[in-house]
Amino acid sequence: MAHVTGFMFPRSATGRSSLVPSPPWHYSGTTLTIEYQTDPAAVAELLPDPLEPADEDPGAVAVIWADWQSCSDSFAELLDPVRSQYMETFVVVRCKYQGRHYSRCVYIWVDKDFAMVRGHHQGYPKKLGELYVTRPVTVGRAGPRLEVGGRFGATCAAYGRRLMDATFTITAPSETAGFVNAFPMIHHRYFPAIEGDGTDSLDELVTMSGYDGEVGRCFTGTATLELHDSPVEELTRLAPQEMIAGYWRELGTSWRAGTTLERDRRPVDPGAGG
Amino acid sequence: MAHVTGFMFPRSATGRSSLVPSPPWHYSGTTLTIEYQTDPAAVAELLPDPLEPADEDPGAVAVIWADWQSCSDSFAELLDPVRSQYMETFVVVRCKYQGRHYSRCVYIWVDKDFAMVRGHHQGYPKKLGELYVTRPVTVGRAGPRLEVGGRFGATCAAYGRRLMDATFTITAPSETAGFVNAFPMIHHRYFPAIEGDGTDSLDELVTMSGYDGEVGRCFTGTATLELHDSPVEELTRLAPQEMIAGYWRELGTSWRAGTTLERDRRPVDPGAGG
Amino acid sequence: MAHVTGFMFPRSATGRSSLVPSPPWHYSGTTLTIEYQTDPAAVAELLPDPLEPADEDPGAVAVIWADWQSCSDSFAELLDPVRSQYMETFVVVRCKYQGRHYSRCVYIWVDKDFAMVRGHHQGYPKKLGELYVTRPVTVGRAGPRLEVGGRFGATCAAYGRRLMDATFTITAPSETAGFVNAFPMIHHRYFPAIEGDGTDSLDELVTMSGYDGEVGRCFTGTATLELHDSPVEELTRLAPQEMIAGYWRELGTSWRAGTTLERDRRPVDPGAGG
Amino acid sequence: MAHVTGFMFPRSATGRSSLVPSPPWHYSGTTLTIEYQTDPAAVAELLPDPLEPADEDPGAVAVIWADWQSCSDSFAELLDPVRSQYMETFVVVRCKYQGRHYSRCVYIWVDKDFAMVRGHHQGYPKKLGELYVTRPVTVGRAGPRLEVGGRFGATCAAYGRRLMDATFTITAPSETAGFVNAFPMIHHRYFPAIEGDGTDSLDELVTMSGYDGEVGRCFTGTATLELHDSPVEELTRLAPQEMIAGYWRELGTSWRAGTTLERDRRPVDPGAGG
Repeated sequence: MAHVTGFMFPRSATGRSSLVPSPPWHYSGTTLTIEYQTDPAAVAELLPDPLEPADEDPGAVAVIWADWQSCSDSFAELLDPVRSQYMETFVVVRCKYQGRHYSRCVYIWVDKDFAMVRGHHQGYPKKLGELYVTRPVTVGRAGPRLEVGGRFGATCAAYGRRLMDATFTITAPSETAGFVNAFPMIHHRYFPAIEGDGTDSLDELVTMSGYDGEVGRCFTGTATLELHDSPVEELTRLAPQEMIAGYWRELGTSWRAGTTLERDRRPVDPGAGG
Repeated sequence: MAHVTGFMFPRSATGRSSLVPSPPWHYSGTTLTIEYQTDPAAVAELLPDPLEPADEDPGAVAVIWADWQSCSDSFAELLDPVRSQYMETFVVVRCKYQGRHYSRCVYIWVDKDFAMVRGHHQGYPKKLGELYVTRPVTVGRAGPRLEVGGRFGATCAAYGRRLMDATFTITAPSETAGFVNAFPMIHHRYFPAIEGDGTDSLDELVTMSGYDGEVGRCFTGTATLELHDSPVEELTRLAPQEMIAGYWRELGTSWRAGTTLERDRRPVDPGAGG
Repeated sequence: MAHVTGFMFPRSATGRSSLVPSPPWHYSGTTLTIEYQTDPAAVAELLPDPLEPADEDPGAVAVIWADWQSCSDSFAELLDPVRSQYMETFVVVRCKYQGRHYSRCVYIWVDKDFAMVRGHHQGYPKKLGELYVTRPVTVGRAGPRLEVGGRFGATCAAYGRRLMDATFTITAPSETAGFVNAFPMIHHRYFPAIEGDGTDSLDELVTMSGYDGEVGRCFTGTATLELHDSPVEELTRLAPQEMIAGYWRELGTSWRAGTTLERDRRPVDPGAGG
Repeated sequence: MAHVTGFMFPRSATGRSSLVPSPPWHYSGTTLTIEYQTDPAAVAELLPDPLEPADEDPGAVAVIWADWQSCSDSFAELLDPVRSQYMETFVVVRCKYQGRHYSRCVYIWVDKDFAMVRGHHQGYPKKLGELYVTRPVTVGRAGPRLEVGGRFGATCAAYGRRLMDATFTITAPSETAGFVNAFPMIHHRYFPAIEGDGTDSLDELVTMSGYDGEVGRCFTGTATLELHDSPVEELTRLAPQEMIAGYWRELGTSWRAGTTLERDRRPVDPGAGG
């Protein structure tokens, strides 16, 4: 009677093959956040029942480029950085559930498989993309300094099509990195039934937050964002109507677990555990 | 009250963003299959209860390189081939469940995101890899002919490490492409609970087969296979003890749905539908 | 007194490290050719003196997707196909030199380093790209058949931007694959002086042809082509004014050497050897 | 009479298509240098006549991972970072020419086409690879700090094979980043004649240095290095016999031009200009 182990598939005798190591996962990196207002209806159409639009600024959107290193509690990935470094670009909106406000990732691209499936575990609807963001430098001419006037570019492409082009110019130090991605996340974890009958085998509403968050240098500034069309994307439905601001910061965080709020569209009894 | 749609995440107002289009999915391509005997214990340790080793040749393994085009019923992907073409390399063993024999994919690498997550839907534990197999040609000197003596190479790498090197030399036409991957598939669909408590939110035993299978030219021959080590793989536990044979064939198939056999380790009542 | 060897850099004691193996090189593959008329002035501006526009159809352009296997005389690359398989997309025009007509590649993208630098040797101005072309199939629904009505798509992207989208539909068998890429090639091999003074250290006009060409199945049909803009490309200057036709064929060829016509803008004395 | 322009091929009416923008080029980034002693004969065999082994430590080797942003004088690349960011891993030895000591790159891998061909211009024998080096972080648990005890990993792969694995642990601040890569570079710029007759059309011995070098934080430490075999590499001939040290630093530099020392194996008259 064999027993297979591993946090994620493929599960095996030793668990070493698991595409994702067991949590907790630790993250250190930088984020470039660009916030803007779109048509609130374009946000609302991405909020399935029972989620509702946010009370204020229901059309606010954040597009975030994150340049990460991540690792498990073994820290082994840090010495084999192909298993540690990845970029992601994600689109976040806000919503309300049972009277509380949450942040929600509606689209996201990433450039490594471990980060893609780890994101699926957390309810991030990750696809693969080619993602770039300018890095600040301390010497030489080939990059911005972390100071007023520093200019950054950021791009997102998938299937050989440019999907987003953004720029950011630092205007001042900042205490925050915006308000759109500032709540606990609320995500659906969906997985269709293999019967292909329109039902889901996995249908959960979950919430989560990182822990041991640590913020380094943080700046705000002006930003531009262009969204491009693709036959398999709908980004242009979220076209900017008004730019809010951009933010760059250093960020460390860890993540262990989330909480299931609903399963199969029924609330989960919190007394019953996860 | 918004309703989001789409076969797979991300779900949206139109469904266009779904990483995987709705089934059915159609596949046309070629497969190179290399079969060998390993230590039966190395297969058995990958068969979680209630699966049991096959009655005969319980150490038989097939490693298969498939060079695919696939598409949905819209056939749109065929004209944007970045969304249609992919390679995959997978390791298949056989097992027994409730007295019937099945094939089971224990490890698999693929080179596109849509194919990766589509595979997860089917219970294939797909990772990303760099996969290559020689293609037969009809003119010129840079490739084998589909005839006796034609030689092929095939390789699999992931995270910048070569995992497999194989060769195949045609010795004769063939009616079959081996016996290891010849049964209906039996897979687990696992997805851990977001609580990270060691339980799974999705734990299904499923079976599936394609339909409208169409076989083109088919050949058998001799084969070699080298498996290499990696800190995040366990392929070398399946080291060949004896080579059986290799097979090359053209294959078309379609796939719509599978059947859930057990959910949460309890049999699914077939009368209750999927 | 060490001697280093190798056809191409890096040169070493054994020559094994050379990015490109010694010629001859053998090629087997398929090509999709799309021919159209652009503004003749857009072709002429790509023909440096002493090249002149072709006498007839001076605005004719061919865009070609080639799906290759290639190898050296050792044939070793065919069993390690990561070193053998590559895609390329190239733009060809015609011109006249000393009263004879030639074909000339003005832009080209390829997806492997060995093919890129091998092309530089031949005067092809190769960049890297993500290149795709539909492959014909013999079974299943996921691909065209090599017969009237078969439809193909082809795309070219670089730096995360889609540069070209093409389609081709077979209307009839064909004896030829067009007329634009049908002459011997005439290319410049340029390499700027390291002094950065605007001079070239290598400035050669060369011509070449393959040998042992072998043509397999060949079809013609209707074609469409869209060219997209990029900050580092000028393809849209070659915008189609009128489509001519498309062609698909199987092709084998070998290549050993070319002939230098001019060096440093002075004719090379043919009696003096290369 | 058309005139085409552009620093590098493809040359065109506007020059915009050139794979490499005109110099000067500016670089900002970080380097991880690992120095060790190998068999001096393994270095000497990579020094073609008239180069001679260095007087002291003729077996000293540096392997360097550089994580760069670079740009032209337009600085446009910094806002489209796919055209600015690249990684490279290179192997440097020292040698003597006409009584002076130089550094020389004998093998190098890079991950972007513009950087590859720009390097060819400078005599670097660049191939493509998958290159990774741990980045230091300031917050969170997923990366080393720039302080004693900080640990880094670095890897190099090509054609799906791991070629190098290295680690570095900071032991102290440092004034230098080693001695092997500290001289002006001396490189050959080779390009074979298209006649394939064993002669070179371009055969130059060049030297160069950057300008406006700017060094940021700099640390030294202990290092490990493993070299792996490949059918198309000879790295293992340079196997470490004794590790010297590792170095990490921030570096900015600019590059405009070099000087041709010999052409066609004859000294260039310095009075005659480049």
